[in-house]
Amino acid sequence: MVKRVAIIGAGVSGLTSIKCCLDEGLEPSCFERSDDIGGLWRFTEDVEDGRPSLYKSMVSNTCKEMSAFTDFPYPEDFPVFVSNSQVLEYLRMYAKHFGLLKHIQFKTTVISVRKCPDFSATGQWAIVTESNGKQESSVFDAVMVCIGYLSDPSLPLESFPGIETFQGEYFHSRYYKHPDVFEGKRVLVIGMGNSGVDIAVEASRVAKKVMISTGRGAWVISRVFDNGYPWDMVFLTRFMNVIRNSLPGPITTWLVANERFRVREGLLDVIREPVLNDDLPGCIITGKITIKPSLKEIKENSVIFQNSPTEEPVDIIVFATGYKFSFPFLEESVVKVEKKQASLYKYIFPPHLEKPTLAVIGLIKPFGAVMPVVEIQARWVTRVFKGLCQLPPVSTMVEEINETKKNKIRWFGLSYDEILKTDCLVYIDELASLIGTKPNVLALLLKDPVLAMKIFFGPCTAYQYRLTGPGKWNGARHAILTQWDRTVKPTRTRVVEEPPNFCFNLLKLISLFALFAAIFLGFK
Amino acid sequence: MVKRVAIIGAGVSGLTSIKCCLDEGLEPSCFERSDDIGGLWRFTEDVEDGRPSLYKSMVSNTCKEMSAFTDFPYPEDFPVFVSNSQVLEYLRMYAKHFGLLKHIQFKTTVISVRKCPDFSATGQWAIVTESNGKQESSVFDAVMVCIGYLSDPSLPLESFPGIETFQGEYFHSRYYKHPDVFEGKRVLVIGMGNSGVDIAVEASRVAKKVMISTGRGAWVISRVFDNGYPWDMVFLTRFMNVIRNSLPGPITTWLVANERFRVREGLLDVIREPVLNDDLPGCIITGKITIKPSLKEIKENSVIFQNSPTEEPVDIIVFATGYKFSFPFLEESVVKVEKKQASLYKYIFPPHLEKPTLAVIGLIKPFGAVMPVVEIQARWVTRVFKGLCQLPPVSTMVEEINETKKNKIRWFGLSYDEILKTDCLVYIDELASLIGTKPNVLALLLKDPVLAMKIFFGPCTAYQYRLTGPGKWNGARHAILTQWDRTVKPTRTRVVEEPPNFCFNLLKLISLFALFAAIFLGFK
Repeated sequence: MVKRVAIIGAGVSGLTSIKCCLDEGLEPSCFERSDDIGGLWRFTEDVEDGRPSLYKSMVSNTCKEMSAFTDFPYPEDFPVFVSNSQVLEYLRMYAKHFGLLKHIQFKTTVISVRKCPDFSATGQWAIVTESNGKQESSVFDAVMVCIGYLSDPSLPLESFPGIETFQGEYFHSRYYKHPDVFEGKRVLVIGMGNSGVDIAVEASRVAKKVMISTGRGAWVISRVFDNGYPWDMVFLTRFMNVIRNSLPGPITTWLVANERFRVREGLLDVIREPVLNDDLPGCIITGKITIKPSLKEIKENSVIFQNSPTEEPVDIIVFATGYKFSFPFLEESVVKVEKKQASLYKYIFPPHLEKPTLAVIGLIKPFGAVMPVVEIQARWVTRVFKGLCQLPPVSTMVEEINETKKNKIRWFGLSYDEILKTDCLVYIDELASLIGTKPNVLALLLKDPVLAMKIFFGPCTAYQYRLTGPGKWNGARHAILTQWDRTVKPTRTRVVEEPPNFCFNLLKLISLFALFAAIFLGFK
Repeated sequence: MVKRVAIIGAGVSGLTSIKCCLDEGLEPSCFERSDDIGGLWRFTEDVEDGRPSLYKSMVSNTCKEMSAFTDFPYPEDFPVFVSNSQVLEYLRMYAKHFGLLKHIQFKTTVISVRKCPDFSATGQWAIVTESNGKQESSVFDAVMVCIGYLSDPSLPLESFPGIETFQGEYFHSRYYKHPDVFEGKRVLVIGMGNSGVDIAVEASRVAKKVMISTGRGAWVISRVFDNGYPWDMVFLTRFMNVIRNSLPGPITTWLVANERFRVREGLLDVIREPVLNDDLPGCIITGKITIKPSLKEIKENSVIFQNSPTEEPVDIIVFATGYKFSFPFLEESVVKVEKKQASLYKYIFPPHLEKPTLAVIGLIKPFGAVMPVVEIQARWVTRVFKGLCQLPPVSTMVEEINETKKNKIRWFGLSYDEILKTDCLVYIDELASLIGTKPNVLALLLKDPVLAMKIFFGPCTAYQYRLTGPGKWNGARHAILTQWDRTVKPTRTRVVEEPPNFCFNLLKLISLFALFAAIFLGFK
């Protein structure tokens, strides 16, 4: 019977893992390498080894209602998209509210996690930790690995011929903190993930010239979406998911993507990874940022791009080339990382263990907020530990893992070649079903139609996974009914008249067709 | 017979006035107070008396194709929205190409412009100028006043009770150059015109807190419009103008405005002045900028807003309260400025003069680019000077002036309480008709259907006023047919596949209705 659970890391995943252990009556012991909670979300001016590193201006990509844990909404006066320091503040409130801090040993590094000799019977693990230069070993009934995947920069210099001759400065995006370094310089950012684009935008305000080099392109989405609403509250609804999954591919693609940026901007070839950025389109259209293809060669003070003979002078190169991940304290026989993929059932459980007493939390890049995903993982995992949920046979797990590894093109046109990318709504629902906490919209329609409508048509906030089943929270219904109030509150800073809403919408509906015909016929 | 024309100012209006005089065989003499051309568009680190003052980061609100003079397109490699230094570069190219510089006397201030004693017979003006401390008087057959309206800041401190007790710093937006002044400060920007919003956005990246105080609100439009196209190339077409003018008011309002920002953001009460800004919505939704109502009172280190008892601490107040204008060198009997309005026929001619030999160019705030508007003004004016175009009787002119002064609410919902705001498309067409250079789309449909379609459905670029009539330019047709190429060129910096366009659009059309129904039913 699992009782004592070791949790490695006190970031978002670690904190909610502690909380879920407590909820299930387990005894969590969390080991945190640094001296504070928050993981990724705790900004420091210096880059610390083995810890993620943020830039000062970083703002959450998902809005506060979609980012909240299932039973702990953000305060209503927080802005719709919170800054990194506000996320940390929220995490501190969460830790305080649920009494998590006393279960964390700070400045304690996990050195090794090994199966106990009697593992096949007990499922226990021997964990060696180091604190103040002193090593200690203890036995735990289960382990939750919550170390994230943004600590170890991937800097594939060998793919950039000529980099060794480059006379300018270059660094990985991890080392970027403030835009001052770019003052008056010609900057090249390689890679257009979220950090790459954020850095390029900040650089463009002070630099002489900014280029982004990208092989695959990206699909740019604004935080401020249709009608000024947060993108994820509009985009991530059960209803829209049904629509997206029932329409033919190209239409869905068009519906899904915020079409403000088209092929002609040289941004995308196939619709690939979405990038959240409000400023990039404006920077491109005003000539502050230029999108370039992949690099062919780096010279002393310039670079040459694919399909172009001209040398572009460059002073600074930023490698926004992402991260690798690994589990240095685990044996390869437990989890093996190959081609940036770890073979884990539901991105969580190594399938070959005799006992399911080791789980990886948060090794996932959902297209949406991270918090609700890692929380549902932790809720399920703790119930698996306790034997309340069962894993399927090894063969089934292995088969499913191999299935997800295949290059599946799904509704968003995302190629699922990276195991870390997941359609979060489907994934959360899946785990919630396993726990027995997935809301049944149809049943609810009879019992509580207002709530059912909100759940189906409204944003898929995580509170709905506390309405029913194990871990039910009485505040969940209220949290759902007031989610738009908390969203709207921080921007209602000036009293204005509301326009007539329903009629207005009807008029819109009627006139939309005319408009569209107009644009379709008349445009260009 | 008018021959010698005095032109006061060598900014955008002055330069095109020189050019139009030359085109009509007149002899222009341009007097420029400073030592260089460019007016508003020439950035200087120091604020110079009697000259407009720019902030360093200022970018044109209208795209290069819509901003070009009728016979001088921007170079194709200029970005879609050019920076202030690029506008200046363009003006220098324009001046060089048409040989304008030799007609300009720099460092020469116009002291007075007086009717000659025989004015009623000759229409001549005696002009006193000062250069190097030496005054000189000469007689001209006509005068074009091209001094703009952005030199004389309006700082109505009397409307801000308590400002005299304020311990922090305050200044007019005219004195803003770089965001460094806001580092770590709590900033209040009063007024949300284009400068106010630009300044607030720049401040938000370094300041501790930024608020914008606005009584009337604003309607925020992005430079990057639907599908990533420049807003004005989509918005300002003859076809869209027909649609806007034929649909009922509220629908039009909705169609017209980029609805990304709604009432709930506390931004607008009635749809008022449009503000061009790509970043404001993102700043509001991330809590970096807060929109506040009008000020009630200013205290030593804080302010109190209307309808709110709380004091908000403030370190710096920026008065983005606009400009006044005046004609210091003219007698009031010629042009009188009352309540920020000058009574001018078509915003140009004082109606009561015995001879129409004095014209004001560029005293207009079009909802669109300024260059084409001032150029058509200058083209018409030079033809009036020469007697090729006639003004109507005084009574007709006065009647029309009074009509425009009335508070007319038109399609955009703009209240025309400011004489400076004008629907540029209608206005340019009006003057073009008077000159005889307005394109006849119907007639063209038979002769050159491709061109006719571009003119009607495409962006209303100014080249079309050089297709026919006096001042016809042979390059006009080509310039129109290639306007999108020049727009697209600077962003085509990476070779990508185009998606299938026509089928794609059809699919869009079909699916749009479904989508809209979806949003309408499902949203919120």
